[in-house]
Amino acid sequence: MNEFELIQTFFARQQINRADVAAGIGDDAALLQPPPGQLLAVTSDLLVSGVHFFPDTDPAALGHKALAVNLSDLAAMGAEPAWFLLNLTLPKVDAAWLEKFCRGMFGLAREYGAQLVGGDTSRGPLAIAIEAHGFVPAGLALRRSGAKVGDRIYVTGTLGDAALALQQRRGRLSLPKNEIASVAERLDRPTPRVREGLALRGVANSAIDVSDGLLADLGHILEMSRVGARIFLDKLPVSPVCRAHLNDLGWDAVLANGDDYELCFTVPAANIAALEKIPVADDFRHIGEIEVEAGLRILDESGKAYRPRETGHDHFAESKRGNT
Amino acid sequence: MNEFELIQTFFARQQINRADVAAGIGDDAALLQPPPGQLLAVTSDLLVSGVHFFPDTDPAALGHKALAVNLSDLAAMGAEPAWFLLNLTLPKVDAAWLEKFCRGMFGLAREYGAQLVGGDTSRGPLAIAIEAHGFVPAGLALRRSGAKVGDRIYVTGTLGDAALALQQRRGRLSLPKNEIASVAERLDRPTPRVREGLALRGVANSAIDVSDGLLADLGHILEMSRVGARIFLDKLPVSPVCRAHLNDLGWDAVLANGDDYELCFTVPAANIAALEKIPVADDFRHIGEIEVEAGLRILDESGKAYRPRETGHDHFAESKRGNT
Repeated sequence: MNEFELIQTFFARQQINRADVAAGIGDDAALLQPPPGQLLAVTSDLLVSGVHFFPDTDPAALGHKALAVNLSDLAAMGAEPAWFLLNLTLPKVDAAWLEKFCRGMFGLAREYGAQLVGGDTSRGPLAIAIEAHGFVPAGLALRRSGAKVGDRIYVTGTLGDAALALQQRRGRLSLPKNEIASVAERLDRPTPRVREGLALRGVANSAIDVSDGLLADLGHILEMSRVGARIFLDKLPVSPVCRAHLNDLGWDAVLANGDDYELCFTVPAANIAALEKIPVADDFRHIGEIEVEAGLRILDESGKAYRPRETGHDHFAESKRGNT
Repeated sequence: MNEFELIQTFFARQQINRADVAAGIGDDAALLQPPPGQLLAVTSDLLVSGVHFFPDTDPAALGHKALAVNLSDLAAMGAEPAWFLLNLTLPKVDAAWLEKFCRGMFGLAREYGAQLVGGDTSRGPLAIAIEAHGFVPAGLALRRSGAKVGDRIYVTGTLGDAALALQQRRGRLSLPKNEIASVAERLDRPTPRVREGLALRGVANSAIDVSDGLLADLGHILEMSRVGARIFLDKLPVSPVCRAHLNDLGWDAVLANGDDYELCFTVPAANIAALEKIPVADDFRHIGEIEVEAGLRILDESGKAYRPRETGHDHFAESKRGNT
């Protein structure tokens, strides 16, 4: 099977045809019709075997996650997903692997109305680069640079489950079987917070997705907004399973692991009432405040300063080979 | 140096700031303002070490070529380059390598007014995926599917120089030193035919860039347009250097090698006068005709059918390891 047939067979079979795609897969470039009056949000994320995922990862989970991490970036901008491109290097053409990969990727794509419009494939070490496009009205985009002194800091969902699953998979923690499934799902098939991002348009002053760890990602907001913050350990939302293993896992893993793909965002006092009216607001947790003093202060249960040893993810740090 | 600093250091230093980039590198996604009334042309190409280029390739040439192959796809659509994203996996952070890579990439980007607006980096086997965006007014895009019976078939520039350089580099041909430089430049730093593609708007019925070889790429036009064609070996444009070595190189290499990144396009009789008025028309060569009978017929100097053994490029064919 040659490259062209491969593309035709697996990637032309998605079950979505957006009206704004004038030409999808099959020409030198896709031809797309952006909606008038909106900005185009464009993002790209790499997943490399042995760096971002274990080589034996279920291909369906990989297809899901490769797209999910990009939709998560769109969510963090308050953008509505539309189109994506896939660059895939594979050691060999493995029909069963591709079938599962596509099932995971297209399953998530359909859920968010995103259409595959192009990309490239090659023989090579297993790696996936997806590039996703979305729309956001000018002026409503959620930026890292928008946080203001006095804003409340929130996160969606819970943090730490993916870290727990990773430690379990590496043999450093041993979880009961019934707990493994729920946390593994968080690591393997993260849910991009697209609906939450759209709901936060005009409500949040700033947002970022927690892909490199809360400390690193909130750190980006602080740096870009030229502000500081304090957050409270006992306000960080963790799942019941995560809380049960928190003594073994440690707060550092919750603070420094990014694979949960939640959103961290800040809201000014004037918008709290609007925030609370959002249908999914029960899922938002108030974890701290934006302050004028630079830097991030973490306070523990007793109000004392907590000093984490890890501060976030670095894909070039040699000490971090493997799936973090 | 961590990933974030790497990006800041090397990729934030480009010397171009387009007015339609509301937010470039540094947030979860870039925010871009497409021009009203135009289609967005989006394309992506992978370059993998050991598959598309030799591992010891000059990083500046690699930076140039990784962008050039994408601009070539935009050219083939008649699109004007605007923005691009870079996904780069590197075995290690090598400042000297990155410096040269950026010089090659940004040098070409400035020439065509293209701005880097995002991407991702990771440790991993050397590979580059660039995704390029351009604009083309609806109705003026050059499509593979537009060829009509009676159209003349043209190619830009010359074919075969990159094949010659590749054979020389593999030790299968030995060229005099003064000839090596000119053909090596074609292989290492191809010129995307962006100006030609723009000039062909409203003139050509169909177009493609010759990235997989003339036979394969013209084949895509024939298939998508549901037509056939005849071309003439003695009309194929080759450089003086290539002609001097044609006996050793062979027509098959000229027909099946795509690394020259010329455009192949078809023009109806009614537009020949308009074609000849294009300032760069001297660089276009009429090589054959679109016909109703399916398939591609190649005629040699004596008018006899020529049967090539190779038909084009396949990035998954095991027999083709290396830079083809």
